[in-house]
Amino acid sequence: MKFTATASAHPNIAFIKYWGNRDDNPHLPANSSLSMNLEGLTTTTTVCFDERLKSDVLILNKEGITGEGFQRVHKFLNHIRQLASKSTYAQLESVNNFPTGAGLASSASAYAALALAATRALGLELTEKELSRLARRGSGSACRSVPAGFVEWQAGEDDSDSYAFSIASPEHWGLVDCIALVNRSHKKFSSWQGHRLAATSPLQSARVKDCQRRLRLCKEAILEKDFKKFAEVVELDSNLLHAVMMSSQPALLYWEPATIEIMKAVIYWRETGLAVCYTLDAGPNVHVICRSSLKDETKERLLNLRGVKDVIAAKPGGGVKLIE
Amino acid sequence: MKFTATASAHPNIAFIKYWGNRDDNPHLPANSSLSMNLEGLTTTTTVCFDERLKSDVLILNKEGITGEGFQRVHKFLNHIRQLASKSTYAQLESVNNFPTGAGLASSASAYAALALAATRALGLELTEKELSRLARRGSGSACRSVPAGFVEWQAGEDDSDSYAFSIASPEHWGLVDCIALVNRSHKKFSSWQGHRLAATSPLQSARVKDCQRRLRLCKEAILEKDFKKFAEVVELDSNLLHAVMMSSQPALLYWEPATIEIMKAVIYWRETGLAVCYTLDAGPNVHVICRSSLKDETKERLLNLRGVKDVIAAKPGGGVKLIE
Repeated sequence: MKFTATASAHPNIAFIKYWGNRDDNPHLPANSSLSMNLEGLTTTTTVCFDERLKSDVLILNKEGITGEGFQRVHKFLNHIRQLASKSTYAQLESVNNFPTGAGLASSASAYAALALAATRALGLELTEKELSRLARRGSGSACRSVPAGFVEWQAGEDDSDSYAFSIASPEHWGLVDCIALVNRSHKKFSSWQGHRLAATSPLQSARVKDCQRRLRLCKEAILEKDFKKFAEVVELDSNLLHAVMMSSQPALLYWEPATIEIMKAVIYWRETGLAVCYTLDAGPNVHVICRSSLKDETKERLLNLRGVKDVIAAKPGGGVKLIE
Repeated sequence: MKFTATASAHPNIAFIKYWGNRDDNPHLPANSSLSMNLEGLTTTTTVCFDERLKSDVLILNKEGITGEGFQRVHKFLNHIRQLASKSTYAQLESVNNFPTGAGLASSASAYAALALAATRALGLELTEKELSRLARRGSGSACRSVPAGFVEWQAGEDDSDSYAFSIASPEHWGLVDCIALVNRSHKKFSSWQGHRLAATSPLQSARVKDCQRRLRLCKEAILEKDFKKFAEVVELDSNLLHAVMMSSQPALLYWEPATIEIMKAVIYWRETGLAVCYTLDAGPNVHVICRSSLKDETKERLLNLRGVKDVIAAKPGGGVKLIE
């Protein structure tokens, strides 16, 4: 007997960042966060539960995965099997249509797509909220790739109310994320256990304490489509994230020379009339946000910077969905 | 009648940073700090009180200064005249032997030298403590350029006990500050009222709260000549300073692409066996600290980095002194 299903999901870019957990299992975050799904960047995952399998099998971008990455997925599938009272192993095939190794976090889209495909294959019909809670167990920010458009992840009190929901549809505001992929002058800085290091920064609690205020401002800015207000809080929140990272022990310094070049260019462009702002995840690439009318101008300016290798533009994307 | 005196002082590099005031006048800092004077970099100032003058005159590196810079010095001289019960105007000639515009803060050495020269010219004989308190009124970190070698500025409760004192002589530990001057890819980022912006960062109070712990660690490391311990706390403190700056409103982002290049190179060199660490003041230049035995190797490596324009090396320097 085989039970199969395929789902797709988009990664998301956080405007109010998730960093650090109150509880590592099942991923209860230190603070609420807010993001936008990225249309066009897609992870598609097929899950096939097959009674002939002797173990789970994970194939990512046509390559078999073992080790830590596999164990994490295996543990996640065990949880789903438990929910469905099944014990059958599964083969997973997952493909990203965006360049791997470009430093774009794909675990969010991966676990969102996996959560939907695996539960449907086993005949479970979860609500969006239940699916978001489930995806969160695989990778915290995956819960934000479940609902569509602009999404808030409320930290919640426990597993039952820590989930994400849409605050505005993808059509609400025509923002574009121009992702500037940077040339790396040094090897990747270790990101080992980043979330676990958050608490070693003397600044983390101050970042978290001020988070609800920033989230409220950012939500208002999105609902009111107020770009100036949006830019201010988004850059502040990104700077606060990297402030915590660089003051954790050991320090996490994700920025490359090109990262600074782009950040300062963005600030200068905004000061001289181009409505853009930057935000960075745990990596050196710079997400430059603008209204869709400024997409071409922004892309062109970015590509003219010495440190920019390529630019990928993405507008607000939908939520996780089943592929028939 | 003329009353004249000449004094010289060195700038200092802070290992535990001063950033933000509890009280802007008379410069009571948010936290205690710790620094090393920089031998070889010298400001020499001659003050001549002359009854024929109709106003104060300020000549800096052979150029007459007016505007805000002059007003600050004038106000400082008024305070000294009050202490000495005099009303005579003065001509100041101040010369830095280090490249101006290299982004090396010279207000510390300037106000330390000025405090000594001006008081002696008026016949006042201040103790080191009194001189440090006085220099602090001109520019906060100037109080640290008054005593010799490795210096602690205790924040204190009020004007009477906010001053700096030596915790170790220049000969105590043969450290060298290799100051990497960076190529700037953008115009100088505004540093307008930096100290006043400190309180607008949601992180400043957390930085200040943890400061005594860092100062204690740094002092221990210096007294024990423990470079590993020293490196860890010095880089953390520098990162905390820049974390506060980049999260103030408006954000102060002093780093240039080359700054990141150097910081990451220093971390990599230390990981691979070269005992060096970095610290940055409110500017893009990187102060790379090492033992004197590693000075040549460190200088050479720095000069091989693309973004480094020049390197100035300085060992621990003495305090402010009168030139006969």
